[in-house]
Amino acid sequence: MPDSRKPEMGDTIKFNWRGKEMTGTLMSMDNDFFNIKLENGYNISVKPDSLTVLKKGKIQVLSKGEEARESGTGKPISLITTGGTIVSRVDYKTGAVFPSLDIGELTSKFRYMENKYRLKRVDFSNILSENMEPDQWVSLAKKASSELNNSEGVVISHGTDTMSYTASALAFMFEEQTGPIVLVGSQRSSDRPSSDSYLNLEAAVDFATTDFGEVGISMHHNTSDERIDLIRGTRSRKMHSTRRDAFKAIGEQPIGSFQEGLVNLNGSYRQKGNENKLKVNLEKRVSIIYTYPGLANEDLAKSMDGKKGIILMGTGLGHIATKFLESISERVKDGMKAVITTQCIFGTTNLDIYSTGREMKKAGIISVGNILPETAYVKMMHVLGNYKEEEFETMMRKNMRGELIEREEVGVFL
Amino acid sequence: MPDSRKPEMGDTIKFNWRGKEMTGTLMSMDNDFFNIKLENGYNISVKPDSLTVLKKGKIQVLSKGEEARESGTGKPISLITTGGTIVSRVDYKTGAVFPSLDIGELTSKFRYMENKYRLKRVDFSNILSENMEPDQWVSLAKKASSELNNSEGVVISHGTDTMSYTASALAFMFEEQTGPIVLVGSQRSSDRPSSDSYLNLEAAVDFATTDFGEVGISMHHNTSDERIDLIRGTRSRKMHSTRRDAFKAIGEQPIGSFQEGLVNLNGSYRQKGNENKLKVNLEKRVSIIYTYPGLANEDLAKSMDGKKGIILMGTGLGHIATKFLESISERVKDGMKAVITTQCIFGTTNLDIYSTGREMKKAGIISVGNILPETAYVKMMHVLGNYKEEEFETMMRKNMRGELIEREEVGVFL
Repeated sequence: MPDSRKPEMGDTIKFNWRGKEMTGTLMSMDNDFFNIKLENGYNISVKPDSLTVLKKGKIQVLSKGEEARESGTGKPISLITTGGTIVSRVDYKTGAVFPSLDIGELTSKFRYMENKYRLKRVDFSNILSENMEPDQWVSLAKKASSELNNSEGVVISHGTDTMSYTASALAFMFEEQTGPIVLVGSQRSSDRPSSDSYLNLEAAVDFATTDFGEVGISMHHNTSDERIDLIRGTRSRKMHSTRRDAFKAIGEQPIGSFQEGLVNLNGSYRQKGNENKLKVNLEKRVSIIYTYPGLANEDLAKSMDGKKGIILMGTGLGHIATKFLESISERVKDGMKAVITTQCIFGTTNLDIYSTGREMKKAGIISVGNILPETAYVKMMHVLGNYKEEEFETMMRKNMRGELIEREEVGVFL
Repeated sequence: MPDSRKPEMGDTIKFNWRGKEMTGTLMSMDNDFFNIKLENGYNISVKPDSLTVLKKGKIQVLSKGEEARESGTGKPISLITTGGTIVSRVDYKTGAVFPSLDIGELTSKFRYMENKYRLKRVDFSNILSENMEPDQWVSLAKKASSELNNSEGVVISHGTDTMSYTASALAFMFEEQTGPIVLVGSQRSSDRPSSDSYLNLEAAVDFATTDFGEVGISMHHNTSDERIDLIRGTRSRKMHSTRRDAFKAIGEQPIGSFQEGLVNLNGSYRQKGNENKLKVNLEKRVSIIYTYPGLANEDLAKSMDGKKGIILMGTGLGHIATKFLESISERVKDGMKAVITTQCIFGTTNLDIYSTGREMKKAGIISVGNILPETAYVKMMHVLGNYKEEEFETMMRKNMRGELIEREEVGVFL
């Protein structure tokens, strides 16, 4: 190291490496290696041949209390943790997997990440996501909103079981947001060599610094580690119980990808906005009803008792047995809303083709197109909670958060 | 036509065509074209250069009453029609599609088929399949069984909406069967140029003459007309509301294919047996319960009232919120059966990995592996209806009709 002046972290430096002269900010030193943030935003870890300090700088020093919860430098990103497999490890005595990791234990594996970003860890909850409830969606939206006031983006680690429900709920609650909200989970606990946690999280943090002004999910594209997808929350669905690539964008391509360290956003999406605007009321008297041959009329009736709205998961284009129509029609006359979706998962509903559909329309059942059943459920809670009754049908048919697609994209089916 | 002796339908003939000498049975004559069944079973329609009658034959003459319901010669196949899009046409005044075709109108399009097979048309019902009920599954099983006593195989035309439910139900009811039972539907009504009816039906009839001793579904493999799949009923699922290739084999490859007029069975399957053995009791006090964040405990409780068994469609590996466990545990102690499946559709359930799963097991909820939710529902009705209570868990875990797969096959996920 020929330079006499001792460089310190935060300094702007000029250095020569393998015959190239480059300029950047010194992020950390590790033995003879210097981690340097280049002007183009990328980080390299090199042993420079020569080095000159151009300008003294300083890496932000955190206050004592915050220190334990924040690490790194660069763009501020909030990591909200809710629990789930991504913060779990295996207890080798019992074989059980339980949430017991601090997400900081994960991010500390990425030296480069702590150099590129200032990561703030925010504990929200520590649960397996099957126990997530709508009230927690509301608290989480508020927490994400307050974090976005100080961060470029928010990453939320979440159990995968109900991650799509939460992503949809947050999506509807944010009318506008100043940065990306990216949910991330894993299908293998983070202490296992095969874990997908690290790459999903690395991608999530990178996705969280883009101009994506929506709620997305960052998970493996396939079973290898070659690509992570950013999937729009309202079009995401966990389609496999065990595979690393369990999450799929239904009916459309993923919004973006993270491949070889590079983020690429292809899809059309809402750009991040100037403020965080929330609508957090949820009508909880809403239920999902799965229909099937043999479902008794009295069981359907019981499921509708006391409900402000129901999401029917019918068959095919959105059909239910015609024997149900009388009782549904009566409830609809009394003010209950009924929206049809399809248990096929893929494809749209359409009540105009078969006689069953037309009779369903007469009974007051509404088809809103290709919305996913779980997204429709969350949307109905949101629309009933925040809009006037006369606006219900208009809002349900309106593409509010990318939940409805005009035309199914090619190559997104089985 | 140089030959002096006049050939008649049914005659065994030797003929010369394009320099080749061939032998076959004369099936019909149409202007100068002769439809001839070759010794290898295939049919050709040619103008022979020369023709000699080797042996006088006779095509079976049907009795007056049967005549309208039977046509063709060759292997006897029963076509049972239940209704659905495949026997529907569009009313161009209203745009509505309604079941109004005789399946004979379809098969008559295939001259070769009527030559290869003796097709017997059996009217069962004329409904859209969303109105199919378990009692009809039973009648249909009995009808299929009686037809199998006189036919090589049975083809059942069916609406696609609940075709997988019916296929599963028939599969469990037939302990043994003397020939294939192949359900067939279409996604476009048969009067439309884009209809998938003809090819699905052509393949179904061919599948029905194999040694496949199970219940399968004959539908398009992809959106082109190049290949039709034979999918095991208990592993089939309608995964798209509109595409011609809506039906998929979940977790395994299709059992067979029909491509360029040739049937090829690859998968392992039960061979057809020596007799038709039916077990037709169904316990109807069984329901499917879809679980999701926000499902209230009292709603779950109501869904269990009066039930002998429930199929839970949980999340991920088969999880439900732990708040539900107390009330389920109480019901299980009182004799109700609870089996967990996953709303992911793909992948298995496993209650041994997370704490939720272990608590569910303690509550008496049973995981039986990768059975599809709808198949599990039908199987539970069958097992509760035909086996002793103490056999319940053993039978549910037993692979009775290919409904459980040991290992997911490669290339069958999204």
